[in-house]
Amino acid sequence: MSNEGALPALASDAVLKKSVDVPEHFVKVLGVDYSADAAYNLTATDLIKSMKTMGFQASSVANACDIINEMDQWRGKHIDELPEHERTGSFDDAGVQKATIFMGFTSNLISSGLRDTLRYLVQHKKVSAIVATAGGIEEDLIKCLAPTYMGDFTLPGKSLRDQGLNRIGNLLVPNDNYCKFEEWIVPILDQILEEQHQAVVKLGADALDADSDAVWTPSRLIDRFGKEINDELSVLYWAHKNKIPIFCPALTDGSIGDMLFFHTFKASPRRFNLDIVSDIRRINSMSMEASKAGMIILGGGLIKHHICNACLMRNGADWAVFINTGQEFDGSDAGARPDEAISWGKIKAEAKSVKVYADVTTVWPLIVAATFAAARPQN
Amino acid sequence: MSNEGALPALASDAVLKKSVDVPEHFVKVLGVDYSADAAYNLTATDLIKSMKTMGFQASSVANACDIINEMDQWRGKHIDELPEHERTGSFDDAGVQKATIFMGFTSNLISSGLRDTLRYLVQHKKVSAIVATAGGIEEDLIKCLAPTYMGDFTLPGKSLRDQGLNRIGNLLVPNDNYCKFEEWIVPILDQILEEQHQAVVKLGADALDADSDAVWTPSRLIDRFGKEINDELSVLYWAHKNKIPIFCPALTDGSIGDMLFFHTFKASPRRFNLDIVSDIRRINSMSMEASKAGMIILGGGLIKHHICNACLMRNGADWAVFINTGQEFDGSDAGARPDEAISWGKIKAEAKSVKVYADVTTVWPLIVAATFAAARPQN
Amino acid sequence: MSNEGALPALASDAVLKKSVDVPEHFVKVLGVDYSADAAYNLTATDLIKSMKTMGFQASSVANACDIINEMDQWRGKHIDELPEHERTGSFDDAGVQKATIFMGFTSNLISSGLRDTLRYLVQHKKVSAIVATAGGIEEDLIKCLAPTYMGDFTLPGKSLRDQGLNRIGNLLVPNDNYCKFEEWIVPILDQILEEQHQAVVKLGADALDADSDAVWTPSRLIDRFGKEINDELSVLYWAHKNKIPIFCPALTDGSIGDMLFFHTFKASPRRFNLDIVSDIRRINSMSMEASKAGMIILGGGLIKHHICNACLMRNGADWAVFINTGQEFDGSDAGARPDEAISWGKIKAEAKSVKVYADVTTVWPLIVAATFAAARPQN
Amino acid sequence: MSNEGALPALASDAVLKKSVDVPEHFVKVLGVDYSADAAYNLTATDLIKSMKTMGFQASSVANACDIINEMDQWRGKHIDELPEHERTGSFDDAGVQKATIFMGFTSNLISSGLRDTLRYLVQHKKVSAIVATAGGIEEDLIKCLAPTYMGDFTLPGKSLRDQGLNRIGNLLVPNDNYCKFEEWIVPILDQILEEQHQAVVKLGADALDADSDAVWTPSRLIDRFGKEINDELSVLYWAHKNKIPIFCPALTDGSIGDMLFFHTFKASPRRFNLDIVSDIRRINSMSMEASKAGMIILGGGLIKHHICNACLMRNGADWAVFINTGQEFDGSDAGARPDEAISWGKIKAEAKSVKVYADVTTVWPLIVAATFAAARPQN
Repeated sequence: MSNEGALPALASDAVLKKSVDVPEHFVKVLGVDYSADAAYNLTATDLIKSMKTMGFQASSVANACDIINEMDQWRGKHIDELPEHERTGSFDDAGVQKATIFMGFTSNLISSGLRDTLRYLVQHKKVSAIVATAGGIEEDLIKCLAPTYMGDFTLPGKSLRDQGLNRIGNLLVPNDNYCKFEEWIVPILDQILEEQHQAVVKLGADALDADSDAVWTPSRLIDRFGKEINDELSVLYWAHKNKIPIFCPALTDGSIGDMLFFHTFKASPRRFNLDIVSDIRRINSMSMEASKAGMIILGGGLIKHHICNACLMRNGADWAVFINTGQEFDGSDAGARPDEAISWGKIKAEAKSVKVYADVTTVWPLIVAATFAAARPQN
Repeated sequence: MSNEGALPALASDAVLKKSVDVPEHFVKVLGVDYSADAAYNLTATDLIKSMKTMGFQASSVANACDIINEMDQWRGKHIDELPEHERTGSFDDAGVQKATIFMGFTSNLISSGLRDTLRYLVQHKKVSAIVATAGGIEEDLIKCLAPTYMGDFTLPGKSLRDQGLNRIGNLLVPNDNYCKFEEWIVPILDQILEEQHQAVVKLGADALDADSDAVWTPSRLIDRFGKEINDELSVLYWAHKNKIPIFCPALTDGSIGDMLFFHTFKASPRRFNLDIVSDIRRINSMSMEASKAGMIILGGGLIKHHICNACLMRNGADWAVFINTGQEFDGSDAGARPDEAISWGKIKAEAKSVKVYADVTTVWPLIVAATFAAARPQN
Repeated sequence: MSNEGALPALASDAVLKKSVDVPEHFVKVLGVDYSADAAYNLTATDLIKSMKTMGFQASSVANACDIINEMDQWRGKHIDELPEHERTGSFDDAGVQKATIFMGFTSNLISSGLRDTLRYLVQHKKVSAIVATAGGIEEDLIKCLAPTYMGDFTLPGKSLRDQGLNRIGNLLVPNDNYCKFEEWIVPILDQILEEQHQAVVKLGADALDADSDAVWTPSRLIDRFGKEINDELSVLYWAHKNKIPIFCPALTDGSIGDMLFFHTFKASPRRFNLDIVSDIRRINSMSMEASKAGMIILGGGLIKHHICNACLMRNGADWAVFINTGQEFDGSDAGARPDEAISWGKIKAEAKSVKVYADVTTVWPLIVAATFAAARPQN
Repeated sequence: MSNEGALPALASDAVLKKSVDVPEHFVKVLGVDYSADAAYNLTATDLIKSMKTMGFQASSVANACDIINEMDQWRGKHIDELPEHERTGSFDDAGVQKATIFMGFTSNLISSGLRDTLRYLVQHKKVSAIVATAGGIEEDLIKCLAPTYMGDFTLPGKSLRDQGLNRIGNLLVPNDNYCKFEEWIVPILDQILEEQHQAVVKLGADALDADSDAVWTPSRLIDRFGKEINDELSVLYWAHKNKIPIFCPALTDGSIGDMLFFHTFKASPRRFNLDIVSDIRRINSMSMEASKAGMIILGGGLIKHHICNACLMRNGADWAVFINTGQEFDGSDAGARPDEAISWGKIKAEAKSVKVYADVTTVWPLIVAATFAAARPQN
């Protein structure tokens, strides 16, 4: 190609292609307006307002706030206006229908300082049901017995094991905490085994039937733990107090499982039985009975799938907020976008949904500060 | 700074700092030697050999192969040489101790074409126990009834839902497959509920005791499914055949859960009870009884934690291979490196372990081809 | 293993291993204290204070704030106290030594609403030098001509191309913006080519020598663009105004490159020459002359490596904050932790450094609000 | 909700929704057929064949192979059939048009054992042009002087710096290698500065014009390095030999930049000038002149954007293979899917393209073994 001559049309047509007129409804990208006084030491709500038009995940964080506010504030009819068979689901203190909000979180969030934020939401009845993993249950209890400490991602495992310090990311849990947990839980396990046994004796052939007192599920056991721990800093305590069920189908997958395992030796040949069928009945029923259903899922894996699957029972949630670091390319459920859940009927096609790609700890304190905790709660 | 004059010492000392003599044992980075005939259309074992000194995750893939070969080939004493109380764990056909290998995989891998590879491993007794999520159980069964199809990550959810096509990453499962599954499973659930009820009637007050026939656990139910499906393409079939337990503590978290939920209405007031305590006893016992224990964990979440936690019961696994896309920065267990598990006593400090950062489907076919399937199995 | 008997010591010793006494200096994990009035609609500084002890990336975000405040507030000696040859580097308005802060950012951050935040930092002389990619230069200029709009990650490429709408993540840039950019830049390129040619004519054999007026580097060209755009919303405008150099070694890699390419035809046989050697001299000299050096690197790739490499010339930066989504497992420089840079002498071993694993847009508005913009600047 | 009664229709309609009949063209998910003899110690081509229908990234890897084979094997007309002005682009040895293939790679891949694979592709003219970062140039040269070694991701930076061992992921480069590089390069820089100066003297006012001998660009300098290194293990050597240009617009961003920086002191007031405008003219011209254009981009950042931008000059590449670990959620170009490039006109809407989400080292050896190196090359 000669150096001389005119600009080649191939390139200039491609580079300088004309665009259509920008539609009226297009929203301009804009950031913080630092000419405003409020731009300094920004508050959560002002930060979120700015992030709305910043693009990338800043916008997703702001969208998550909009969706959360909408599910929090939705109200339907007063219970007195409803026919008897529709008097299900969640109601506010004034007796008006509100959305049933399923919140899921992974164990590590309870280990982190987010536990206080999660507890706040349960204490003030901001959510209707919780799904957690085993660690999310036991770490809440253990934190009532002894603290978790700040550590570092690079502390070497061998030396930590020698010292009995267990690492969770950049956190450390002394192993003595688990010894204290064992001391706390064993008498409770003794007691519930006895209760279960008495119920079997009493009920006989009907021992495993629906609503049998002999059937213990994870949600029932967790509720009992919440009652026994009796500590206002605990998520489980407030869940018990406020009758917010906590589901954890794999409750044996953690320290509680270790303790139940040990207990099989201590109690032999007796054995505590923990049924997961009645809990699937319970969570699915909550989904079907809800007037509207919202999902707030912090992290991936079991807790994400479990809430989505429950919402299939109502042909889809009405709102969905996912926050996690999973990616869809490996076909994992953790990484799946809300749109994948729509294909399954787990989120309604017309629902508002968003996935925020972030470590929950970086964005959840801000999101709560701009939504559920934008103002001090009345109750 | 003047343009004139000598090279500044600050910069040149920093840039041209002398290094120590390279120790003898240092291994040079080297790639494929394309002067060799074997460098063309490479075989799995030759590829892995080259990747060993390539660095980054290529080396991790090669290390995973070394570790897998070591756990596969480890042999201890003949059973006759062992005192009675040590005659536990796994033995090869000749009666010699071998490692107990725990393999975990997430649901999506059964949905993918890796199911055939996972089935191969179970068919030929390459692993001793499996931990899966609910989807990993039901998708294996459903694939015996109807196929899963190739799709695309970007197919829109609403249109898929209208067609009844469920998306898993870039795969599609027609919803009719789940209808077929319901037809298949309902008679089985009827039957086991009856069996459970008869056992309760028979055992009375001892119904929930250790080893009671009235206690059904996920592993027992899965074994029954494997027997009933009776299909040589099924992972569950071969697990049943080869007495390889499959653990799935949250078995209700998926289509099986939907079916058990539906069944609570059909069977009311009877209800099938599924206990998870006896399974934690079972998997932990396998860990304690093993002469040596290896972990192969494909994916993150519950299945990863569950195997690691079981290996804590023996004060750590002897080998560990993790393959997933999780990262440690969010403090998730999925993203945790083997070294975090060492701090908990879940992997021995002196164990060989590796984490491969990859979508399992990109590397597992190659890894198996270079290890468990390097040669056609004799059995 | 028998069901009877005592708890196996193997398991209980492993699970209930005693830990060392927790050292005094250990910091407890704590979250937001919702009993405090300030816990509602939290301000940036209060949010950051809480995140400090939350763990995972919340703590990293808070650490980044501490490090930024430290590098911003560090002061050395007054210039009058210094011998002549040490009167280099950065000084505050009172003539006291301050840290030289290198800030890097990728192109997409200028496309996003963070441009306003980045401009604020340059306007108020919070940073000493900038490294950007080509898009980071041209998008700042183009935004002075026409806006960028909010879009969606899933808008299909073919339809967008038909409409002339270019997608950047969830943002859209109408192609007309680039046509406007061409109209703006061509007269400037004509002019600087003429200036360069006149300088060559004048200087003859010395045309390429140090400090020659015939030598145009990216930083010189960018400074000229900043002068010509003359818009207070522009990063480049304030960089020109405040004499903050912007380095961009690959300035041809974007729309400016397209324009320079087109210009080679228009100007033929003349050709504008853009030299990158004098810019490496310039940035490395800034590093060597700095009293203290801090790095704030938003994103990965070239801009990260370029700043780190410059800091090698002083045997390491004194502070470093990296924020990006890259991971180390693939051996990329983008994903490398600060500790890898220490091995190269690019960060001092004793420096404070942190990597925050996040999309910059989710955390940078908050970080700036709690540091550089905690209070309205005086100047 | 009562335990009694029929299965609720809301749930059963949602769960058991009928699906459309599966279209004929749907492809079933299938894995390795272990009944076949070829399933053991699989070859690269057989592995890829199986991965095609495995789903997730296994399928993407197989698609990448299909696309690469297509761009490698595409042939147009014989040069004699073409009018004079169309006799541009690439031709095979028989004089038939072939695709112009742009390959990009990041620096770390040359540090890794993939260097041998990349060299193989250049040696056998499998690619037409290369875009690399500075490290990708210098590490190829340095490896001719001294080896790189296997290390570990967790080696502590301070101790490495004390020993003068530079870490790149899990690789180590002794700093002496850079000292050797300095000894090698200084005489070359002396010589080219002299050549440049003589050309300026000779050409006078025309010194910077198109095709002037006084203008040195990165691609020209790299070609000279390839000639000087004269080592058959070098990528640069074969690129020089086979007249395959290597573009590197930010060539100063690495050790070469350090050396050019040092040289400004040594040569003062003379200074070597390195122009990037003539290189953007060169790469864009290659794109416009190509009969068909393919992109193979290994890694993200500059090298990805630079090739895509060049292909905009022809209104889009005809094939595109991206392999990297970047994600789109942060709006980075590294993470952008091919579909984003379509919106810009960088890939044709009808082109075949794929993004493989993987560390390049895990998949590229396999991909090359099943494509470019499926059989020993004739030339």
